[in-house]
Amino acid sequence: MKSEFDFIETIRRRYSLSKIGDDSAVLPKNSKADLVMTTDLLIEDIDFRLDWTTPEFLGHKALAVSLSDVAAMGAKPVWAMLSIGIPKAIWKTDFVEKFYDGYFRLAQKFNVEIVGGDISETPDKIVVDSIVAGEAKRNKAVLRSSAKDGDLIFVTGSLGGAAGGLRLLEQNFRYDLSEEIWRKNLMLKQLQPIPQSYNGQFLGEQNLATSIIDLSDGLSSDLAHLCRASKVGAKIFADKIPINKNLCGLTKSFDEKLNFALNGGEDFELLFTINPKKKIRFENELKNHNFSHIGETTANAEIIELILDGRSSVLEPKGFRHF
Amino acid sequence: MKSEFDFIETIRRRYSLSKIGDDSAVLPKNSKADLVMTTDLLIEDIDFRLDWTTPEFLGHKALAVSLSDVAAMGAKPVWAMLSIGIPKAIWKTDFVEKFYDGYFRLAQKFNVEIVGGDISETPDKIVVDSIVAGEAKRNKAVLRSSAKDGDLIFVTGSLGGAAGGLRLLEQNFRYDLSEEIWRKNLMLKQLQPIPQSYNGQFLGEQNLATSIIDLSDGLSSDLAHLCRASKVGAKIFADKIPINKNLCGLTKSFDEKLNFALNGGEDFELLFTINPKKKIRFENELKNHNFSHIGETTANAEIIELILDGRSSVLEPKGFRHF
Repeated sequence: MKSEFDFIETIRRRYSLSKIGDDSAVLPKNSKADLVMTTDLLIEDIDFRLDWTTPEFLGHKALAVSLSDVAAMGAKPVWAMLSIGIPKAIWKTDFVEKFYDGYFRLAQKFNVEIVGGDISETPDKIVVDSIVAGEAKRNKAVLRSSAKDGDLIFVTGSLGGAAGGLRLLEQNFRYDLSEEIWRKNLMLKQLQPIPQSYNGQFLGEQNLATSIIDLSDGLSSDLAHLCRASKVGAKIFADKIPINKNLCGLTKSFDEKLNFALNGGEDFELLFTINPKKKIRFENELKNHNFSHIGETTANAEIIELILDGRSSVLEPKGFRHF
Repeated sequence: MKSEFDFIETIRRRYSLSKIGDDSAVLPKNSKADLVMTTDLLIEDIDFRLDWTTPEFLGHKALAVSLSDVAAMGAKPVWAMLSIGIPKAIWKTDFVEKFYDGYFRLAQKFNVEIVGGDISETPDKIVVDSIVAGEAKRNKAVLRSSAKDGDLIFVTGSLGGAAGGLRLLEQNFRYDLSEEIWRKNLMLKQLQPIPQSYNGQFLGEQNLATSIIDLSDGLSSDLAHLCRASKVGAKIFADKIPINKNLCGLTKSFDEKLNFALNGGEDFELLFTINPKKKIRFENELKNHNFSHIGETTANAEIIELILDGRSSVLEPKGFRHF
């Protein structure tokens, strides 16, 4: 069966669509700035389950995933549109008000203006399409395709938490104030992810990153996307990967925790590369922003090596895909 | 039960969203131009049925409805994004390729660049979100809220055809090359509507229209939207409404044909108002573009009169609404 990535690549070539394939599309705005645009579809029972989340969390997450795509261009989010399809039975409840509350609270936090949208009825499932526009300095949006062989690979924050939260939800835990803190933290990472909008802007404005991608499918998959687009390979070090500390509650096994961090999706952290010369110049900034240096890109195109206990193995992408 | 219009109005006020409520949102682009943005959700078994249409028609229509929103701002369409959710069983067929064929053919016709989108799996129904950006001269996008009392009301093309096509589809006719021409014409108007992109641009560039709305819900509803937004009333003349000629095949009754034209949705023609002084200056243009003068706006805020056989009655909005 064709994968969604192959299909997009086919469409891109057939119709000569040069702007397709990155986290967001880059469009000329004016002499100083470019517009970056992204759209993300969230489908009930595929991307979320109503019995696992709350309307507020869902509204938050709908915006967060698109803010993350804009952050992954090194851009600042500016405005958003929201299309939402709702079954009649849900429309009669206070679901939509609460959903918008979660959505708007996050929009206000990042100063994003809501400029439009659409509301429609659906036969039985909720669908949401979240559209966000950002701005980057002219020709300075950071692509996933511009890493160079020998660049240093970094990630923001910690990894594997969202996948840990998903595991808990599958085990019938629910987000509840009386729940243990590590469980709440993992579930919040899954249900109410914080987009790396400030870090994305910082990386773009400082001209620091040579490439950025957001971690939505999982480190092993998203690093593979970045390497494919940039025509480089990568070597990453297991002991340098910032594993989410709350995963300790879930398992004592390092391998299992590492697996969450490598293959778990939806952390919405940023994966980025920098030229090694910049590492010294930006030493303090890299530390203050809680960025972790996890490896280097290599000339070994599209091959990703994982170094674990001094031994190297090929890391296959195992993250999330729809088709 | 709350209507979608009331809900949008509530949201607009609660969060002080000034850009919500027109066919498209207007955003500053640069010193010469504004960006106008629209998004339209199409849901299987609500907005379309797979056994009534073809994948190519559906792809065409997904783009057409958003192009129509941009035309209704007097703007020129420039780029588009497409989010599509597909059940696994449909993904395995050639549906998506054919859908994109219809979508891209229309995009090429109007020189619209496809810049991005999203593909997702759905549990069982197809969902499409169509996003189009247009450009208007700075501060010259034409709103639905700027008609003045005493303006002349015009429509493009002819009305009621799409509703006639819907009636045929409900009667189990299908679009087929061997079908009678009037039936094909009505079904095409429903399944493959032509957006009024050139007429929209003309009205905007010539500074001709004081207000524009596209006819998606139906004349009685959309004129009510325009009057409400502009705080005017309207008087329209039944004998001046350009009823789609193919409706003669469906019914000999004038009242029934008029009903299709007044209350049938999805014609995607434009309804617009002009200052009476411009009528003489633009006499030839109005004729050459096949625009019909159907009435006037009045000071009788939000009351719409229909003049039929010399008698006046209040025209209630009866078009399409989701909730």
